[in-house]
Amino acid sequence: MNPLAEIFSQGEEVVSGQTVDSNAAWLSQQLNELGFTVKRHTAVGDRLDDLVELIGEIAGRADCCICTGGLGPTCDDLTSEAVAIASGQALQLDGIALRQIEAYFSNRRRPMPDINRKQAYFPARALRIDNPVGTAPGFALRIQRCWFVFLPGVPSEMKAMYSAVREQLLSRFTLRPARLVSLRSIGIGESAIQQALATLSLPGGVQLGFRAAPDEVQTKLLFPADFPRSEMRDCVQTAASLIGDYVFAIDGLDDGRGGDLLTVIERGMRNKNYRLAELESASGGLLAAKCHGRDWLAAAFIARDTAGAFRQLAVEPDSEGDLAKAAERLAKRLLELHSADFALVQLFQGTQDDYRHKDKSISLYNCLLSRAGVFHRQHTVSGGAQIKQNQAALLSLDLLRRTLQNPCL
Amino acid sequence: MNPLAEIFSQGEEVVSGQTVDSNAAWLSQQLNELGFTVKRHTAVGDRLDDLVELIGEIAGRADCCICTGGLGPTCDDLTSEAVAIASGQALQLDGIALRQIEAYFSNRRRPMPDINRKQAYFPARALRIDNPVGTAPGFALRIQRCWFVFLPGVPSEMKAMYSAVREQLLSRFTLRPARLVSLRSIGIGESAIQQALATLSLPGGVQLGFRAAPDEVQTKLLFPADFPRSEMRDCVQTAASLIGDYVFAIDGLDDGRGGDLLTVIERGMRNKNYRLAELESASGGLLAAKCHGRDWLAAAFIARDTAGAFRQLAVEPDSEGDLAKAAERLAKRLLELHSADFALVQLFQGTQDDYRHKDKSISLYNCLLSRAGVFHRQHTVSGGAQIKQNQAALLSLDLLRRTLQNPCL
Repeated sequence: MNPLAEIFSQGEEVVSGQTVDSNAAWLSQQLNELGFTVKRHTAVGDRLDDLVELIGEIAGRADCCICTGGLGPTCDDLTSEAVAIASGQALQLDGIALRQIEAYFSNRRRPMPDINRKQAYFPARALRIDNPVGTAPGFALRIQRCWFVFLPGVPSEMKAMYSAVREQLLSRFTLRPARLVSLRSIGIGESAIQQALATLSLPGGVQLGFRAAPDEVQTKLLFPADFPRSEMRDCVQTAASLIGDYVFAIDGLDDGRGGDLLTVIERGMRNKNYRLAELESASGGLLAAKCHGRDWLAAAFIARDTAGAFRQLAVEPDSEGDLAKAAERLAKRLLELHSADFALVQLFQGTQDDYRHKDKSISLYNCLLSRAGVFHRQHTVSGGAQIKQNQAALLSLDLLRRTLQNPCL
Repeated sequence: MNPLAEIFSQGEEVVSGQTVDSNAAWLSQQLNELGFTVKRHTAVGDRLDDLVELIGEIAGRADCCICTGGLGPTCDDLTSEAVAIASGQALQLDGIALRQIEAYFSNRRRPMPDINRKQAYFPARALRIDNPVGTAPGFALRIQRCWFVFLPGVPSEMKAMYSAVREQLLSRFTLRPARLVSLRSIGIGESAIQQALATLSLPGGVQLGFRAAPDEVQTKLLFPADFPRSEMRDCVQTAASLIGDYVFAIDGLDDGRGGDLLTVIERGMRNKNYRLAELESASGGLLAAKCHGRDWLAAAFIARDTAGAFRQLAVEPDSEGDLAKAAERLAKRLLELHSADFALVQLFQGTQDDYRHKDKSISLYNCLLSRAGVFHRQHTVSGGAQIKQNQAALLSLDLLRRTLQNPCL
């Protein structure tokens, strides 16, 4: 059983929404990797009563809590005072902390404002945590069952101090870090993945979870610390086979198969010095923008519609309206013009009105031409204009990814 | 005394730190503006006991709570079940919700997986909140003293549903919303704005705040509910003059001057039926992608560098290396070729290595040519490759915005 941890963020700017609390996520990741189970995040503003109450709640239910914020010099920084009340310990001047704060100012040739003295006062039995980059030292102490660590809210200071905190935690707790493996997929929804995995029987102690991000769905397998590595690989491989070739990468196995879609494509393209020329319509520049700065992107063209695509590449349009055939003719032209290894052409069927309307869908045609052959794919894309645009870019890139991962290539 | 609100985020991905919880900040801002006092944010994972416990705690101390996450179709989505237990109400099938979910899939020509049925079950006395963009409807109900609103965790779905929630809250609570005016600017940093506003003396009760978003900086003035309108307008006007023409829009005055950068440009272009042709380099397709689907974008070209730009438009390059002159020649060609009203050409000085390196900067040249004249602007752009790409797209669009807002045009 992992020790239970909580994250506590203090500050009016967090609770009023002026600041997105990225500290909580960062600290949770660190604690999870160390082998804690993080059960809760809580944020409250700069009111003494609220702080004392929350510290009391956490002291009774968690084994460890990392708190950020409220250590500054101004009157709304109340953390030390709240801890003193909650722990029943008086605040004491820490001489070393005071000298560190004085040195911070003298190093910058600035006089130390009087109000900064306050930052050197800690509850009597607290352990000081040095701050190498700012004025506010942190501190740590036990209250009831919980080991509390108080750090400044400025992310760069908090992160600079975390390595010392990590050492403290490793020596105070018996920790067994778990192992997270993520199967990253495109073109398949969360519920379809769950159905595909219906027959998967997970070994005891392995947890299954899902995360839908705008650009992909992640299927997450969390293995206990002592889970055998070969059994873990088998389990991941079985899950990947059940989901199928929607999976473009697997993170967490340290076998070089991880990364986001662009990283996977980058690996495939660089590996064989391939070059890509592309013409996009439905994604309107976003495909090129996602590949921007990559050496393997030889040329990119944007067309509003199929007629515009023929104009852009100076190809005589045919009147049959067969988009797959049109895409292939355009791809041939691209391959010739830019001496590329791959030509990717993206066309779509549907009016501009269909495109903009969130309740209407368009048909997306992708054609990828290489010397080894031609690959066609068709998708129905729906949602608002920005969602359609992003999906179109991703689905075109995914055809390239599939081709690069094709063992017959 | 404002009613007390809390935000509750549910999901293993939040509490484990895989996802930074931006929903909590966004919702807090909305509730603050409505006239609530937000006292706490809490996040917990996908464990039924933890959810039931937390709902019980909040039910006893807050007047309103907005919860996100846990409404998906999979086995780790437990919110409805937890609410049923905490409220003592059984789950019931909502026929309308089921038809909405079925329609979501049939619109996309996909069969509805059986597990999605689960998303149509709500506690017996709950009010359904329609989801116009996804499969998970939300719901709202009272438990003890607190009005709970449950929304999906996907930010785009949560935000799309919020306007209905806002109406509900306005009718259920006696609120005295403060009035928020945002001065939206591009090309100037938060601290430079703060310096520019040093001489601004704000009337009592008016709060000044800042928010730095990836695409803009917002200067926020929060006026009390009963603040006189004309005095408010004067105060905003003074602040806008002090910041200068970096301000591209003012939100919150209901005078048609609000909106994001693209909205402002859209207004200017449509107003006079203008058409734009553009060639971009440093933004690599992102400028076109940001304008995608707009009728006024007549043509878009992507070039890797200045030599590529000359090739793309079949213009003979000159060897002088004067980028401003080069941009102007290319713009002339664009204007002729596409019978546009504006030709925008974006070039940059710096190697591909400078572009990719986060500690190196590039010089960005923008030239906007219209029949009324030519406008040049040069900027230094720094940060990682993606930041440079985005900044380049924004600064080019901002030159178009400045030209459209120029009263002499």
